[in-house]
Amino acid sequence: MVTIHDVAKRANVSAATVSRYINKNGYVGKKSREAIEHAIKELNFVPNNVARTLSTKQSNMIGLIIPDIKNPFFPELARAVEDTAYKYGYTVILCNSDENPKKEQHYFKALTQEYVAGVIITSTHSGNGQEATIPIVALDRAPIMDIPSVTTNNILGTEMAGRYMLECGAKELLFLKGPKQLISSEQRLKGFLKAVEGKNIKVHIVESPYDFKVAEHITFQFLQKHSTIDGIFGSSDVLAIGALKACEKLNRSVPNDIQIIGFDGIQLGNYTTPSLTTVAQNIYKLGETAAELLIQQIEGKSITEKNIVINPELVVRETTRKGFLQ
Amino acid sequence: MVTIHDVAKRANVSAATVSRYINKNGYVGKKSREAIEHAIKELNFVPNNVARTLSTKQSNMIGLIIPDIKNPFFPELARAVEDTAYKYGYTVILCNSDENPKKEQHYFKALTQEYVAGVIITSTHSGNGQEATIPIVALDRAPIMDIPSVTTNNILGTEMAGRYMLECGAKELLFLKGPKQLISSEQRLKGFLKAVEGKNIKVHIVESPYDFKVAEHITFQFLQKHSTIDGIFGSSDVLAIGALKACEKLNRSVPNDIQIIGFDGIQLGNYTTPSLTTVAQNIYKLGETAAELLIQQIEGKSITEKNIVINPELVVRETTRKGFLQ
Repeated sequence: MVTIHDVAKRANVSAATVSRYINKNGYVGKKSREAIEHAIKELNFVPNNVARTLSTKQSNMIGLIIPDIKNPFFPELARAVEDTAYKYGYTVILCNSDENPKKEQHYFKALTQEYVAGVIITSTHSGNGQEATIPIVALDRAPIMDIPSVTTNNILGTEMAGRYMLECGAKELLFLKGPKQLISSEQRLKGFLKAVEGKNIKVHIVESPYDFKVAEHITFQFLQKHSTIDGIFGSSDVLAIGALKACEKLNRSVPNDIQIIGFDGIQLGNYTTPSLTTVAQNIYKLGETAAELLIQQIEGKSITEKNIVINPELVVRETTRKGFLQ
Repeated sequence: MVTIHDVAKRANVSAATVSRYINKNGYVGKKSREAIEHAIKELNFVPNNVARTLSTKQSNMIGLIIPDIKNPFFPELARAVEDTAYKYGYTVILCNSDENPKKEQHYFKALTQEYVAGVIITSTHSGNGQEATIPIVALDRAPIMDIPSVTTNNILGTEMAGRYMLECGAKELLFLKGPKQLISSEQRLKGFLKAVEGKNIKVHIVESPYDFKVAEHITFQFLQKHSTIDGIFGSSDVLAIGALKACEKLNRSVPNDIQIIGFDGIQLGNYTTPSLTTVAQNIYKLGETAAELLIQQIEGKSITEKNIVINPELVVRETTRKGFLQ
């Protein structure tokens, strides 16, 4: 193991000078700097981050706990977190909780043990993070408790979807609701009902996990029993795309017989046929903002806004007939 | 900061006993064990992994360097690595290199500084990892150098695709080749040509980055100039799905006018219309095997097979007309 003393010896300077150079906390003359750089290269010296972590009790690592990187919403989110972390000199530890509170707790504890500088969590339940002694940011799903968070305005989003569905002329809807333990599922239902309440439209509410195949199966079964359905809202694009597949299998033409609107704005929605009309979250901005909010806390900067809400946008593609908005 | 001494004092045992309990390296009586557990809970004591890392020069973290988690091939791969790591008590640091050798090197160095136990890398170039002093596994893309690797049998895969394309009756093909700096791109071309060489079939080879939109654009342009194309092979599903979108925009019916085969077996291929015929890699097994191979090295176990090659499988869906294999 090459130490700072080996570098000092080779560069013919004091260990204190090498330390100043590495930690960038003091003047090092040009000649010494060059000699140190040369010695570091020659000896293949790697400054010891772990030792630094131990003395400062803080590493340059950020934990990211999400339900499942395979759900197409999360890769873009994770990417934004990682890009932002990289920009500020942090690395990201990825943890998949599978919407399992126990696994979530396990990771939370494991991350704390590694002295991560902070944790970003898309939590299944609202309790986690309560006892955190390190900075934490809730992402995508706002917990009840009082921690910094970055979320999408779900109510506004589904209100737009509901209004657009009405404008496109749908009369009987299947509302595919997300898992009930998620606050976002309830918010999305609330916004949608707000838009269609009192209007001449019938809404059937059916819950589905965020899984293509299950959503396809549920929709297939439901449409077989309810042949008058002419509109489907999926609380996530995964649900909407599962529903689209079910329509295809039942030879129900989209958007002629049945119109579909999703929620999320994942890349995949561009590549279905017909392409998916959806309430697009600004996924990249969500991840970026969460990472910035976390790093601000880690670096002791003051936070002007603790609970940041980002507005989504209706992206009209081919699974809806043209409404008044177009 | 609660220390081992605080726990010892509260539990009324010696610090050595607490240390034996935490590190599981010696006998601790039932009464002492219960007292220690009680004290740990009461004091909210967290054993210090970082200090342990410093003394053993090895953490329980694994670095995973991939090109881009947004490319739909990688979330499943990353998930498999993380699942396996979790099973063996490791956590995963995720790094996106953007196929940029400099960023790759930066991460490689950063991970070494954190004393990760090992690194799994899907490298853009064959040079990285050469000077690694920690265990390393090359994943998906086999480097030239002599490090452990887990890859798909690309040549076998595209040979199957080429033969099936012939059996389905295609006469003039567009072969969308992956980026030229990747060994896998060359292997996939080689296998395909092996199958169609000397047969009554014309092949145009065009390179495309692994990007939906670019592949769509390239295919759109190419098909406008070459109206006799009746088959497209995409060296990745992303390329094949981009090509499918181009056919749709040009009103070329798939599979009646043009047949398409992809490579990878990503989930998305199920959700295009028509669904994508593809050479499916066993993505989960690739990631799982790579993590196991790395952990075997980390834990000093002997490795029976250093370069593991996993066979892909042809998955026939709707973008091809039925061939003899069906």
